[in-house]
Amino acid sequence: MALKQVSSSKCFGGLQKVFEHDSVELKCKMKFAVYLPPKAETGKCPVLYWLSGLTCTEQNFISKSGYHQAASEHGLVVIAPDTSPRGCNIKGEEDSWDFGTGAGFYVDATEDLWKTNYRMYSYVTKELPQLVNDNFPVDPQRMSVFGHSMGGHGALICALKNPGKYKAYDATCLFLSDGQLLPDNFIAACTEKKIPVVFRLQEGYDHSYYFIATFIADHIRHHAKYLNA
Amino acid sequence: MALKQVSSSKCFGGLQKVFEHDSVELKCKMKFAVYLPPKAETGKCPVLYWLSGLTCTEQNFISKSGYHQAASEHGLVVIAPDTSPRGCNIKGEEDSWDFGTGAGFYVDATEDLWKTNYRMYSYVTKELPQLVNDNFPVDPQRMSVFGHSMGGHGALICALKNPGKYKAYDATCLFLSDGQLLPDNFIAACTEKKIPVVFRLQEGYDHSYYFIATFIADHIRHHAKYLNA
Repeated sequence: MALKQVSSSKCFGGLQKVFEHDSVELKCKMKFAVYLPPKAETGKCPVLYWLSGLTCTEQNFISKSGYHQAASEHGLVVIAPDTSPRGCNIKGEEDSWDFGTGAGFYVDATEDLWKTNYRMYSYVTKELPQLVNDNFPVDPQRMSVFGHSMGGHGALICALKNPGKYKAYDATCLFLSDGQLLPDNFIAACTEKKIPVVFRLQEGYDHSYYFIATFIADHIRHHAKYLNA
Repeated sequence: MALKQVSSSKCFGGLQKVFEHDSVELKCKMKFAVYLPPKAETGKCPVLYWLSGLTCTEQNFISKSGYHQAASEHGLVVIAPDTSPRGCNIKGEEDSWDFGTGAGFYVDATEDLWKTNYRMYSYVTKELPQLVNDNFPVDPQRMSVFGHSMGGHGALICALKNPGKYKAYDATCLFLSDGQLLPDNFIAACTEKKIPVVFRLQEGYDHSYYFIATFIADHIRHHAKYLNA
């Protein structure tokens, strides 16, 4: 598949780029962001996928999280896809902030109206990694995934459904117990199955990118430990 | 003057807030951003003013520059005002991206049509510092100013026209020699007058916030050296 470069800006010695392509899974044009650290000029790097939350495009994470310094220092390629197909002209697609456009939930839809385009699970676990592996200096054996809110849930699902595919043994997930997200249930299930889980709760922070920016370097360091091992 | 809090988010242990007030100089409602580092909980801190570039509001710098970590670590209160009066219903105000709204240029206008509202120089050098000194835990004797593009020029003008007002002996100014900004002329003038100037040119970076984010910690460290001396 041909990639069209939409933008390229130097950042922390590397390059923050955005590309557009025709997605086979989603049957529409999709944009995704790629950060190439300085290390990518001379060799293959591990690749870390970021899955964004509701209403986001590929822009939110790359402009607001401040992740570039840590990615540059640890030599990680970082991929940030959009959060849903766009402009598919499906009835109801634009009606709600938490359903349809901007709300792909990283699942493959099963309902007739949605199942042709809304295949974000297959897109982020198969089509996009293949595209990235074919076009950028990454080591396909060293990939990892993390995300925020809807994307934190997406990262967990991607990792748990594909044992061994992602190098970091847990998907870093940033979430809040705001009633929709149920960390207690998750921890209880892990405990029952004797799956180790690190759960951190940060006092006083809201659900915004100010929260993400504060802890993003910690999370990237966590992934780098496994990706650069 | 009464301040109305518009938002407050915890970030790097401190608080990123936005306030609204009725400006006496500009005769309209204005928003400005305030970052209170953790140190501000227990005492007065130095205060650093950021002046943004064309088209910006108070949001661009606080959401895209990644400045919070350095401000938190160095214990600096950071103020980011808007770049012009808003909604004054002046003929032509909204016609151009580089004149009128979003383009106050940190000067006091002299033309009849504009001189009632477009008094950004007086706003950022007098009204806003007074408001900040009266309402936040800052030390008025330790203030400094920096900015980007139109705001970098603004920072230089504010500092050069008010010897002794700003603690850092030079205004940190991020600019590009894109034809409109003339760093060579500035350096020549400084050389002639024997004024020391540090001029850094960063290869390959564009005029975006990816450039600002890459070097913001350097610039804050520079200011902190004088503000915390």
